[in-house]
Formats: sequence, structure tokens, C-alpha cells
Amino acid sequence: MSEPSGEFQLISRLCRGLRNSRRTLLGPGDDCAVLAVGGIKQLITIDSLVEGVHFKLEWFTPEKLGARALAVNLSDIAAMGGEPAACVIDLALRDNLAKRFAERLYVGLKRAARAVKVDIVGGNITSAGQVMITVALLGRARRAILRRDGARGADEIFVTGSLGDAALGWRILDGRLSAPDVARGFLVNRYISPSPRLSAGAALAALTPVPAAIDVSDGLAGDLRHMLRASRVGAEVDARLIPLSPAYRAVAGDDLKLALSGGDDYELLFCMPGRYSERELTRRLGVPVTRIGRIVKPGAGLRIRNLPRPVDLRGLRGWDHLRQSV
Amino acid sequence: MSEPSGEFQLISRLCRGLRNSRRTLLGPGDDCAVLAVGGIKQLITIDSLVEGVHFKLEWFTPEKLGARALAVNLSDIAAMGGEPAACVIDLALRDNLAKRFAERLYVGLKRAARAVKVDIVGGNITSAGQVMITVALLGRARRAILRRDGARGADEIFVTGSLGDAALGWRILDGRLSAPDVARGFLVNRYISPSPRLSAGAALAALTPVPAAIDVSDGLAGDLRHMLRASRVGAEVDARLIPLSPAYRAVAGDDLKLALSGGDDYELLFCMPGRYSERELTRRLGVPVTRIGRIVKPGAGLRIRNLPRPVDLRGLRGWDHLRQSV
Repeated sequence: MSEPSGEFQLISRLCRGLRNSRRTLLGPGDDCAVLAVGGIKQLITIDSLVEGVHFKLEWFTPEKLGARALAVNLSDIAAMGGEPAACVIDLALRDNLAKRFAERLYVGLKRAARAVKVDIVGGNITSAGQVMITVALLGRARRAILRRDGARGADEIFVTGSLGDAALGWRILDGRLSAPDVARGFLVNRYISPSPRLSAGAALAALTPVPAAIDVSDGLAGDLRHMLRASRVGAEVDARLIPLSPAYRAVAGDDLKLALSGGDDYELLFCMPGRYSERELTRRLGVPVTRIGRIVKPGAGLRIRNLPRPVDLRGLRGWDHLRQSV
Repeated sequence: MSEPSGEFQLISRLCRGLRNSRRTLLGPGDDCAVLAVGGIKQLITIDSLVEGVHFKLEWFTPEKLGARALAVNLSDIAAMGGEPAACVIDLALRDNLAKRFAERLYVGLKRAARAVKVDIVGGNITSAGQVMITVALLGRARRAILRRDGARGADEIFVTGSLGDAALGWRILDGRLSAPDVARGFLVNRYISPSPRLSAGAALAALTPVPAAIDVSDGLAGDLRHMLRASRVGAEVDARLIPLSPAYRAVAGDDLKLALSGGDDYELLFCMPGRYSERELTRRLGVPVTRIGRIVKPGAGLRIRNLPRPVDLRGLRGWDHLRQSV
């Protein structure tokens, strides 16, 4: 359940006054909900891709679009440290689309599901003015659950992979940015085919103490703020430590705006005491891990030090302003 | 998972070649999927309401629209004889809607969920050109599961409540039909606020032998055909037995077209050996039950006898042709 900041606050307001049963171990507000079902802890999340809001149809083969619709939900399971299990799919189609479109989309969905051992157990199809793919994904929690409200004072803040690539890829696809061929291929692929960090999430859930985690779907600043708000702490991030890909540097130089606020990277952001080195975490998670800052006392908000060029932090609400403009 | 006939066939085609795990006890093709989770049988379904396809915004208060989005999913759980438990909601909003709209929609959703002890455990909000409410609903199967592929030769065919009311209500709202005030109120309410037959489904799941069942979301002819196809049997329905409300008779007289093909009634259609009388079933299910025909040998298709006025049965594909025209 990834959402731009404004929408996150709206969801929280809408869900006020819920009186859920004891079967609901964790309700709205994290990457997944947690349910007690027949003695196990089940995870559930729902997310959608909307044509003209999250993507343009001409950017994707239908197969890759289908795979991406599953991937954004897999990332929510990864952020809870869980194991994905089964999904249902609601597909809204424009009447003027070729019939092969839905078939090819499902080919991509089925292939992506098989790769992570997720069953596709049901579906619904409707017509609409825009293509919209909504996936509800079930998973199983491991022994420990990574929550976004678990960050504690003096925790260190880590992130997997590199940030801002997908946002650059989006802008390249949208014709707003040009890039040398090699960088272009890498950045566009980071947007088109994100790699949900399922193994990394599983490895995090095996650590002691259990880290706090969230996926970076809305941009580092936005998602870190979600975590800070949920955990009631502040954070200091050192801009010089933010992991950037060579392609990002080639295209954006030292402009960190999209590394801080661009969404759709689907990396994991996590917090834990400084017990493990970056190298040790990288080894355990199977993906590069970088320490970018630390948790500080409540009330400090998010402070970003050592920015090489000024970025209007007030404007870093996350990804929604871009989403609106596709 | 209710869908017009053409869409049902499309889903079946799209899901071809799925290789699900043994945890999936029943995959795509029925009202719900059935999963083995921690020793229990879990039900899951997904369905959506799309502005301009399933409804016009001016027909509904936001509260009633929210309640209806849950109801259409509850009906799928009812048709499996299950008990609803928890849901996640994906809400697509137009940017030009009043902010209060989403809040009032959620008021209706929360109230409807509380009334049937369903937890709302997560949500997602996005922008789109049309309002679209997608609910994924989890439930728990009872001892027996009502399936649409369980109809057998010589079973009798029963239906709860009355048919065609919601389709008339829709046409009244759409200005295509006028009706006396009392009839108008009843019919419109049948469309706006359907009553998913949860208790009736639970009572059916307690019968021996276990009935076959499906919910009437797509119209009697369409949904009965789904059941016949799944069960590989034929059926004979006596048109004189189809239960019509006084309001239906007042508005449509002896024209059975919408009773046969109008969707959105969310009644239950079920088949079982003639062991119980209509009166006994009515008592057990707590809702009027009418016998409308019987299952016959495979290959006979659907035959409707004693139509008072001819209805073009070839045209009875279900509800989709109406849905396109909102």
C-alpha cells in the first residue's frame, strides 16, 4: 500500500474510528496489514497502477506492465519481511484496446507470479476510460515483522540499492530528459521493471533486534517522513551518503532532488542500532546496503545535511506532484 | 468476483496455464477463490464499481456508494456459504471531487463493514478520470463450501428473493423508465442498497447434500449459464415460476426480459436434490425461496419454458450491454 504523502494522510483520516476485531493485528498505516488467520500471521496489501497517473501505455509492453503491477505489491510484502503467497487482480480495460492486450498483460503477470511462487487465484475485469490494474496480494509473515513504527532513537538509517533512478527513467520516457544510451537503458529499466527486495526483507526479518522498515515507493524524503511520523522520532540524513548509481550521476550530476523525492525505486529503507556494518548487511541482504544517517530525538523532523546544491525540502512531498503530470 | 458473461470467458482464457500451488484449493472461476491458510479454508474475492460503467455519481450519496462497494463483494462470500472477515480497499478519485466525498464514502464503508463484522485493514488512494472503488474481501469458509460446479442431474433449481428489480431501478434512475412512487422507491433501493444473502448462504452450507450456488449479479440467465457450464449440465426453467416483486409486475407487467437478464440483484441461485420444500428452505434461509426449474442432462443448455411474451434469449448475455451504456 504505497501512496504519496498527501494520500497517506487522507487514508489515515478516512480510517479514523475503525473498530477492528482482535484478528486484525495491524490495521491500515503500514506497507501491509497483518491478520491472525488460523494460527498464522497473514499479510495483505492492495495497490494499483492507473494509466495516465502512474504510467503511459506506450512506455510498456503489456507483459512488463503486468509484471510491474505485481512488483509494486511484492515490494510491500518485502517491506514487512514477509513471503508472498497469492493474489487477486482487478483489471479495468479501455474498450478500444486490442484483445491481445489483456492476454499479454496476463502473460506478464503469470510469469512474474511464478517467479516468486505467488498463486493467481482470482480476477475481475471491467471496462473503464483508463487502464487500471489493481492487485491485492496476500503473504505470510516470518517470525518477525518489519514495521514502519519501530525506529528508535540512535538507530542508524540504511537503504538498499540506489535512489532516484526510476524517477529519472520516468522523465526520460516522458521526453523531459535526455541521457546517453547506457544510462538511459539502466534508468528506464529501473522504472519499468523494479526489483522488489523480497530476499533482503526476509534477511532483515532474521536480524536482532528487528529493524523498522518501509519501502521507498514515494521517494526517500516522503517515505522516511512516514516512518518518522509512525515511530515518533526525527532523523538526520547526510546527503553525501545517499547511494547514487553511475547512471544517476551521469544524468543528474550532484542534483539530489530526485534521489530525495523521486518515487518508484522500490528499495528498502530500514533503521536499526549500529550493530552491523554496511558490508555485513550487504552480505546478509544480498544487495548493496548504505548507511545514510541516523534517528534523532522526536520533534527534530527530517534534517538533510551537506546538500551539494540546495533542494527545496518543503517541496519534497514525494511523488504525487509528478504523478499528476503524466 | 462478479462479471458479465463475456468478461467471465475472458478471465477464464487469461487464467489458462496457471500452475498454482497446493495451497490454492480453488482458483479462478467461482465467486471466491479458496486458500488453505494455517489450517483454515480462506475465501478471497475482488470486485470493483466504476463510475460511468456500474453507476452514475448523482444516483448515490457517497455513503450508499461505499456500502454498495462492500455489498457486491459480500455477495460473493455469501454465494460460497462463507463468513466475511476483512477487506482492503483501493479508491480512485477524480481530482475535481469535493474532499468530503472520500470521507463520506468511507463513512458508508465503515458502517457497512461493522454491520457484518468485517475489518477494514488497509487502503490505497489514487487519482483517475473516473471514481473507481475496488474491494478485496477475505472470508472464512464454513464446514461446506458452495461451488458453482456442483449442480447434478435431477437437482432442482432455486432462487432467493425476487429478480429483475435492480435492473428496473437502474433504468428508472437513468430516466429510461417511469414508475409509480411506491414501486419506484422499492426498485431503486434494490439497485442502490442490495442485501447480500450472507445468512442464507450460511444456512445453505449447513444442508446435506451441499447445494451448488452462485450469486445473481449478472442476471438469472447469465449466472445460471455460468453454473451450467461449470457443472457440465443443462437446465429447464419455467418462466411462470420466476419470482417477481409486486413492483416489478406494476412496472414491467409480464415482460420477463429484465427478470431473466437484469443484473445487480445479488440474490442466490442454488441447485440441490428435491429434498426440501420451498417453505422449508424459506424457513431455513430466512428469505423467500422459489423453485424455478430443474437441472437436466448435459448438452441441453438453458431452456426457458412458458414465457408469456417472447424474449430474445440469444440477447440474454447478461448485464454487460447495459453496463456499457450508462
